[in-house]
Amino acid sequence: MSRLDSFIRRLEAQRACLEMAADLVRGLDGEVLELGLGNGRTYDHLRKLFPHRDIYVCERTVAAHPDCVPPPQFFLLGDMRETLPALRARLAERVVLAHLDPGNGEIAASKALANQLAPLIVPLLQLNGVLVSEPAITADRLSALPLPGGIEPGRYNTYRRINHRSLP
Amino acid sequence: MSRLDSFIRRLEAQRACLEMAADLVRGLDGEVLELGLGNGRTYDHLRKLFPHRDIYVCERTVAAHPDCVPPPQFFLLGDMRETLPALRARLAERVVLAHLDPGNGEIAASKALANQLAPLIVPLLQLNGVLVSEPAITADRLSALPLPGGIEPGRYNTYRRINHRSLP
Repeated sequence: MSRLDSFIRRLEAQRACLEMAADLVRGLDGEVLELGLGNGRTYDHLRKLFPHRDIYVCERTVAAHPDCVPPPQFFLLGDMRETLPALRARLAERVVLAHLDPGNGEIAASKALANQLAPLIVPLLQLNGVLVSEPAITADRLSALPLPGGIEPGRYNTYRRINHRSLP
Repeated sequence: MSRLDSFIRRLEAQRACLEMAADLVRGLDGEVLELGLGNGRTYDHLRKLFPHRDIYVCERTVAAHPDCVPPPQFFLLGDMRETLPALRARLAERVVLAHLDPGNGEIAASKALANQLAPLIVPLLQLNGVLVSEPAITADRLSALPLPGGIEPGRYNTYRRINHRSLP
């Protein structure tokens, strides 16, 4: 498989997971959180999926297409390890769908960052809220969801926020 | 349609056009030319489609994944308006497939550059050689080919190098 094939499959998996998640949270009241704006393509897709919800966006710098820059009241510029804790006052247990794609092309670095961010994201998710993430992550109170049909395991990842259960 | 939808369709169209072109030039002897390396995804796909052909690449600077940087003898760094004329000594009427994707996200600038480059590409194409291009272009001795099934007109473009015919 070429890098072009692999990239197309990744984007198709991303879109399918976001659409599945949108269905899963249809009955929940709350906000959407995009972690990593990049060029703004996925943010644009989220706007189409959630026309009636506020979409908060965290990103280090603005590199998106001008049409895809969020309104300032929903755009938190800076290192997500600092902006996510600051969001807790506004969004604790409010978020119905978070999408995490901190990828900069370096797999190990993305994975390490995602695992640092996961415990900062979980307190923002409401019960039964969904996290869609490109690096697979492991975190307390997240339970992996089955992927949409046709998506190979590991190509993208979806989790649901569950209640904390004491381990036996 | 979101920017994510549109991007996925563009990549699928690119791949389908390259694969159609690879079939069309199967019986021709000659080289492949990638104009615009970018991150190297399409170059990687061309390597898979043409494992037994030399693939020349023109690009201004190296920004590709390290796995996708061409060998130095096939890699022409610099402004294509200068490197393409220099290639004529080696590749005049030798190229079976050229792929032009000079996009930097600015549609008008890409289109203007593609139209400047077209008359420099045509002398490198052999008779019945194919040009696959993202901006549509108009050039003497190029005849538009039908697109593969399922690809909307204008999403990607394919041309065949024909003999010069005097206009009536």
